Amino acid sequence: MSQYQEAIDLHEQWQGKLSVTVKPEINNMNDLSLAYSPGVAGPCIEIAARKEDVYRYTSKGNLVAVISNGTAVLGLGNIGPEASLPVMEGKSALFKRFADINSVPLILDAANPEVFIQTVKAIAPSFGGINLEDIAAPECFYIEESLKQALDIPVFHDDQHGTAIVVVAALINAGRLVNRNISEMRVVINGAGSAGIAIVKLLNEFGVRNVIMCDTAGAIYEGRPERMNSVKEEVARFTNPELAKGDLIDVLKGADVFIGVSSGGALTSEMVAGMNEDPIVFAMANPVPEIMPEEAKAAGVRIIGTGRSDYPNQINNVLAFPGVFRGALLARASKINEEMKKAAATAIAGLISDKELRPDYIIPNPFDERVVKQVAKRVSEAAYQSGAAKKNRSNEEKMILR
Amino acid sequence: MSQYQEAIDLHEQWQGKLSVTVKPEINNMNDLSLAYSPGVAGPCIEIAARKEDVYRYTSKGNLVAVISNGTAVLGLGNIGPEASLPVMEGKSALFKRFADINSVPLILDAANPEVFIQTVKAIAPSFGGINLEDIAAPECFYIEESLKQALDIPVFHDDQHGTAIVVVAALINAGRLVNRNISEMRVVINGAGSAGIAIVKLLNEFGVRNVIMCDTAGAIYEGRPERMNSVKEEVARFTNPELAKGDLIDVLKGADVFIGVSSGGALTSEMVAGMNEDPIVFAMANPVPEIMPEEAKAAGVRIIGTGRSDYPNQINNVLAFPGVFRGALLARASKINEEMKKAAATAIAGLISDKELRPDYIIPNPFDERVVKQVAKRVSEAAYQSGAAKKNRSNEEKMILR
Repeated sequence: MSQYQEAIDLHEQWQGKLSVTVKPEINNMNDLSLAYSPGVAGPCIEIAARKEDVYRYTSKGNLVAVISNGTAVLGLGNIGPEASLPVMEGKSALFKRFADINSVPLILDAANPEVFIQTVKAIAPSFGGINLEDIAAPECFYIEESLKQALDIPVFHDDQHGTAIVVVAALINAGRLVNRNISEMRVVINGAGSAGIAIVKLLNEFGVRNVIMCDTAGAIYEGRPERMNSVKEEVARFTNPELAKGDLIDVLKGADVFIGVSSGGALTSEMVAGMNEDPIVFAMANPVPEIMPEEAKAAGVRIIGTGRSDYPNQINNVLAFPGVFRGALLARASKINEEMKKAAATAIAGLISDKELRPDYIIPNPFDERVVKQVAKRVSEAAYQSGAAKKNRSNEEKMILR
Repeated sequence: MSQYQEAIDLHEQWQGKLSVTVKPEINNMNDLSLAYSPGVAGPCIEIAARKEDVYRYTSKGNLVAVISNGTAVLGLGNIGPEASLPVMEGKSALFKRFADINSVPLILDAANPEVFIQTVKAIAPSFGGINLEDIAAPECFYIEESLKQALDIPVFHDDQHGTAIVVVAALINAGRLVNRNISEMRVVINGAGSAGIAIVKLLNEFGVRNVIMCDTAGAIYEGRPERMNSVKEEVARFTNPELAKGDLIDVLKGADVFIGVSSGGALTSEMVAGMNEDPIVFAMANPVPEIMPEEAKAAGVRIIGTGRSDYPNQINNVLAFPGVFRGALLARASKINEEMKKAAATAIAGLISDKELRPDYIIPNPFDERVVKQVAKRVSEAAYQSGAAKKNRSNEEKMILR
């Protein structure tokens, strides 16, 4: 039986991957009067007096909405909100499983970005954070940016930033193996969708200046006349300083790193041969990578990462988002800023000691329980230090994972 | 310690009355590949091909959104979305506790009805049903009506219809005690808010024609020049056929039934004295009823119901909404229509046998486990019979409560 068929059968069995449990016992009229009317008026009155107390008396502080409009789901494209619901439920399951965060999968009938933004603004009071998922580029950039400005809770488009954090973590560790700091690397990114754009921005935060991003029209440079949008123009301003032009094969010459967030088979042995010695290859297209690990190795690549679980060095978002949100919620951060993302990437990389580090072990296993704890700790510290969270909160002592 | 203070302390302990549990075990890469990527693409593809299959592979079919904008919360008024969240969480807890329905409390920053409607329309694909709660009148009528027309899942404003169903159930049984069918009763309703309007409409469905509704300006009649709105005008067209005018005390003369959804102390012994013999009094203002049961009894009332749990005959919504939604979801009804509400009221009344029926026991106890089962059964039958649900569904055999 194929994995798809097995998953279909299991999903039919589960009839939803999530269930609700009720904390209070409700077995008699007195229980009812305390959990519901009339007793519930007590916390209502408190919150009406001090809105901040909603964190004290309700689920809000540990509740994340996992939101999609189904316009860019996995490798399946624009399949609509209903068909994306299994993914959102899965994501919510991971939030709970890896970080003990309650979450609600919400699929929106909102292909229009303005409807999407207004909807999320309206529902935001219920939640401690918003995880955006599987939204088509370039709309996803505008949606996230608008919501970040409008809301006082963290908004995080995981396809962008989760991927970027894990890629940078893997790259830091690859650099340790080849004795090179990432800021000295020459990096080529293939694919200018949501993940590619976020990777290039986070690399820039880490001081990586020698980056060229390619899309289907080749290298992106400032002033390129075709296939640009406002986000690519922004990227062009801080990448490709020598205004290199041409196709992927041209700009890959002499590069230290290939990062693929594009499509299966985009990277050939011939292209790899033109790269600098001991090149680093992250071929993350799913299910078929830009180059298969066997072929990359035959072409002389020692360090290769993919998105697949059946090869070493799986570059998997689940290493980032649970700890990032855990940290942000613990600190009650108003946003997830660049400092917090950098802290997450550094924390993930730092979990592998010099002794453990190997070409086929540059990134921790998602089931390594230290990951979420360490990421949460560093992210919440960064939230305090960067001003995204107030330092003197009474909840600060709750920073240990529940 | 007061009940308010006890509830405040408990709410702080709970930090939210709900928690999420994950059905699949996720303990290794294979588990992850089935519950999430890449296996999850299987059910996604199935749903993309047949949207209806979202009921087969996800939580949607047993998931209700409990939605409020906080504009009319309990007796507290317009306290805003955050302060209403403890109530919505409580309601969600009751959905689970009484009917095993998963639900999500959602508070909306949407005092504006248009924003409210657009928001609920956008999030609706995630849910099998929408329970509206604590929304100010008259906006609540427009909001519910618009959503009912726009959506293909049940939309139910519980403050209206839940209350109406339980009131009518209690009135049917009071009628059994006084040997009078409700259609022959002369009824006065005090209060033209969401509950009052729904009660008068459901009574009309049961053939009760001799009804007068009062608001703060006295009896509502067709053509009244003041304090009218479109809903009151609609009510005026099928109530008060003799165009009676005057205050509550005037129209109560000779009435069989007083139904109060107004405010504490609105009904005096003097008014009761003017009613027909063996009058029925439902004084449901909270926490202080229109007349205290002791005073009503002293004035000669045998059958009195209130909203309070510390007196007999508590007229409590929890008798209706769990079974109503359970029945609607089981039948996968596209709406909750008048036939289904009538079926619910009749089912609740029918649970008390002639032998059990007494003036202080006209309505079942919410913890009587037969209530939700019987209501669900009758509501789903009514859904099939009235065309709100398709008869030949493969899920029909699942009509037993899970």
